[in-house]
Amino acid sequence: MLAEIITIGDEILIGQIVDTNSAWMAQKLNLIGIKVKQITSVSDDAAHITEALKLAEGRADVILITGGLGPTKDDVTKVTMAKYFHMGFRRDQETLDHVTHIFTSLNRPMIELNRRQADVPDGCEVIQNKNGTAPCMWFEQHGKIYVSMPGVPFEMMYLMTEEILPRLKNAFKLPAIFHKTILTAGIGESFLAQEIEDIENALPDHIKLAYLPKLGQVRLRLSGTGADEATLQQEVMFYAQQLIGRVKKNVVADQDIPLEKALLNIMQERQLTLSTAESCTGGYISQLITQHPGCSAVFAGAAVTYSNALKMSVLGVLPETLENYGAVSEQTVKEMAMGAVANFKTDYAVAVSGIAGPDGGTEEKPVGTVWIAVATQYKVVARLFRFGNRRAQNIERAAIAALTMVLNELKQDVG
Amino acid sequence: MLAEIITIGDEILIGQIVDTNSAWMAQKLNLIGIKVKQITSVSDDAAHITEALKLAEGRADVILITGGLGPTKDDVTKVTMAKYFHMGFRRDQETLDHVTHIFTSLNRPMIELNRRQADVPDGCEVIQNKNGTAPCMWFEQHGKIYVSMPGVPFEMMYLMTEEILPRLKNAFKLPAIFHKTILTAGIGESFLAQEIEDIENALPDHIKLAYLPKLGQVRLRLSGTGADEATLQQEVMFYAQQLIGRVKKNVVADQDIPLEKALLNIMQERQLTLSTAESCTGGYISQLITQHPGCSAVFAGAAVTYSNALKMSVLGVLPETLENYGAVSEQTVKEMAMGAVANFKTDYAVAVSGIAGPDGGTEEKPVGTVWIAVATQYKVVARLFRFGNRRAQNIERAAIAALTMVLNELKQDVG
Repeated sequence: MLAEIITIGDEILIGQIVDTNSAWMAQKLNLIGIKVKQITSVSDDAAHITEALKLAEGRADVILITGGLGPTKDDVTKVTMAKYFHMGFRRDQETLDHVTHIFTSLNRPMIELNRRQADVPDGCEVIQNKNGTAPCMWFEQHGKIYVSMPGVPFEMMYLMTEEILPRLKNAFKLPAIFHKTILTAGIGESFLAQEIEDIENALPDHIKLAYLPKLGQVRLRLSGTGADEATLQQEVMFYAQQLIGRVKKNVVADQDIPLEKALLNIMQERQLTLSTAESCTGGYISQLITQHPGCSAVFAGAAVTYSNALKMSVLGVLPETLENYGAVSEQTVKEMAMGAVANFKTDYAVAVSGIAGPDGGTEEKPVGTVWIAVATQYKVVARLFRFGNRRAQNIERAAIAALTMVLNELKQDVG
Repeated sequence: MLAEIITIGDEILIGQIVDTNSAWMAQKLNLIGIKVKQITSVSDDAAHITEALKLAEGRADVILITGGLGPTKDDVTKVTMAKYFHMGFRRDQETLDHVTHIFTSLNRPMIELNRRQADVPDGCEVIQNKNGTAPCMWFEQHGKIYVSMPGVPFEMMYLMTEEILPRLKNAFKLPAIFHKTILTAGIGESFLAQEIEDIENALPDHIKLAYLPKLGQVRLRLSGTGADEATLQQEVMFYAQQLIGRVKKNVVADQDIPLEKALLNIMQERQLTLSTAESCTGGYISQLITQHPGCSAVFAGAAVTYSNALKMSVLGVLPETLENYGAVSEQTVKEMAMGAVANFKTDYAVAVSGIAGPDGGTEEKPVGTVWIAVATQYKVVARLFRFGNRRAQNIERAAIAALTMVLNELKQDVG
C-alpha cells in the first residue's frame, strides 16, 4: 500500500517555514503499514497542483494533501481539486455552523469570505476540523483516495490521528500491525546489533526489527504484521522481552518516548527529585525536561551558571577550585552537581561544564571538551566527553549524555 | 530563473528525519533571485530518482539534489545520475587524496568502499566537500544545471554558501540583488502595514517589500533588483532608513538576526549584563540566548525555579507573596526579577511565571496566563499576557514576549 504526500503553499517554497508535517505523517502512515513513495511540495498554483495530483495518482493508492485551504484568493486547493474531479460546489451546513460558532465565540464579525470556508466540492465527504475553520475533505476518485487537510500542524495532526488513519486502515483492509519500541541509550548501533544478533536472526518472517539511531540513543522497533492482533501482540512482546533482557543495562524505556521523558517517568515512579546545574548547555537540559507536562513532580529547577561568579554564589563552587582547575574540569563540575543537590534540595543533580565553541578552546581543552557530573547526597561521579566542533551539536550531545548518565546512576542505585 | 530541489533518502520518506535542508536552500536561492518551483523527496531507488530528474528538468533551469551519496549500496544517486547522462566513471585524484587524508587523521583503516567515494561520473565537474567524504558534483546537461550534494546539513550549507550559490549567480548572469532586513517586535503585521503604507506605495518597481511574520516578530525585507549593485544598495538603504525612522519604537535590529541575538548585540554595545528567572519557560529563554557564541559577555545565567522552594531560596521571593498571591502573579514575578538582579548581580533581569498547561489552569488564571517582569537595580515593571492552550506554543510565545519586554525597557532607559 503506497501513499504520497503533497504539501501546497508558497511559504514552503520560499523557505519561510520548514515542512515538519510530512515527516510526522510519514511516520504515522508507516506505523499502520502504508509506505510513503514521494513527498512533493508545490506552490499555490492550480496548474502545478493538478500536475502533482496526476503524477501522484500514477504512483500511489492514497494521496494526502495539506495546505492551501485558507479563505483568501491565494489558496486554490479546494477549487483546483473540484475542477480536477469535475465537481461543483455545495455549502456544507455542518461546516458553516462550526465556522459560525468559532467566529461567535471569538466575538469576531463574519464576512462572506469566511462563510465560503463551508463551500466544498459536491462529490467529497466532509470531515469536520474541530480545531480550525478549514474543513478536511475525503475524495474517492479514479480508484484512489485523496484527502485534503489544512496545513496548520496541530489541526492536521488531530485530523490524521482521530479520523484519517483509522479510515485508511479500514478502507484498505490493512492487516493488523503491532509495534513495540525499546529505547536504549549509551550504546552504538553496531554494538547493539552484535549483542542481539541471535535474537534478530531468530525472528519469524512476519516480525521485523528496525534500528532507529539518534544522537547517543538507539530505538529498537519490533513490527509484527498478521491477521490476528491479539496473537501478534503476544508474539511481538515475547521477542521484546528477549531484547530487553539481553541489553538490559542500556534499556531506558520500553516505549517510544524521548529520553528525558523516560528519566522523568523512572524518577516519578521512585519519588525522586532532580535539578540541573548547567554551564555550556545553557538551560538546554532544563528546557528539554520542562517541555513535559507534570515534570514538576520530579524537577525542581536549574541553575544556568554561565559566569564563574554564579557558579560560586548559586552552586557554592569554591574560588580555589575554579582558580586551580578552571571552569571546565572534573573538580568544578562535581562541586556544581553537589552544590545543586545541597542548595536545591533534590535527590539527584546533574551538572555540565564544557567548551561548546566555536571559541574558548585551548590545546589541553579543545572545543567539544565537556565534563558531566551526577551527584546525590551520598556520592558524586564525573565523566569527560569529547564531542566535535559545532556549538549546537555539542550542546545537544552534552544534554543527551547528561540524561544518560543520570539514568545509569539510577540503575546502579537500585541494583 | 527556476530551481527544483530533489532530496533523496528513505529516511525522509519513513519520517525518521525532517527535511530542514530544503527550506534553507529555498531561502538562499530566493535571496539571489532564483525561485524554487518544486521540492521533491524520493527514495533511494534508481527508477524513482530518474523519473524525478526528468520531470524536474521539464520545469526548472537548475536542479539541486541532496542525499544518497554514502559509500554503501543503498546510496544510488551517483550511479543513477551517471546512467541518466550516459557517463562512465573516473576516479578523482583530488577527492581520493581528501578522503585518504580524513581517514588518516581519524586513524581509521580505509577500505575499497571508502576509496569509491572518489569515483565520479566522467562528465561532471567535481567540487570538493571540505567537511565530508562525499564529493559535490556539478553537471551541465540537456541545457540545464544539476548539482548533487551530500544530505548532511552542514556539509550542504557550506557547499551552497561557498561554491554553489556564487557559481549559479555567475552561470545565469543573474541581475544584482540587494536585500535589507529590518527586525520588528511587538507589533502585528497589519498594524505595521498601516504605519508604513505610504512608504511602501512609494517604492519604485524594482524594490519590493516583504512581510515575514513569526511569533510576535515581523521581519521587513526590502529586495532591490537591478544592474548596478552599488546604486541598488544606496537606493534600498534609502527606503530602509525611511522604514526604520517610521516604526522606530518597534525596530529591534537592522539586520536579519534572531530576536535574542538582537538583544545580545544591543546589551553588549552598552556593556550591560542580563540574567533570567524562569518558571513556566523552564530555561527556554536561557537556551535561546546561549545558542549564540560570545553570549557570556552579556549573559550571566538563569535560575529555573520550577518549585516554589527555589523561588524563595534562589531568588528571594517572600513566602507571604507566594502564599497571598500565588506563583503566577504580578507580585511574585516582580520579586523573581528583582531577586535575579540582586543575587546574580546583573544590570537587567527578566522573570517569567505562568501556566503553560495543559494542567494547572483555574477559572481566574486559565492555561496560557503568563506574568513577565523586567527589573533593573532601580525599577521593575510587569505585564500580564494571555496566550493559548498549547504548552509548547505558550512557552515559545512567553519567551519572545520576555525578550521583547527587555528590548522595550532598554529603549526607554536610553531615551
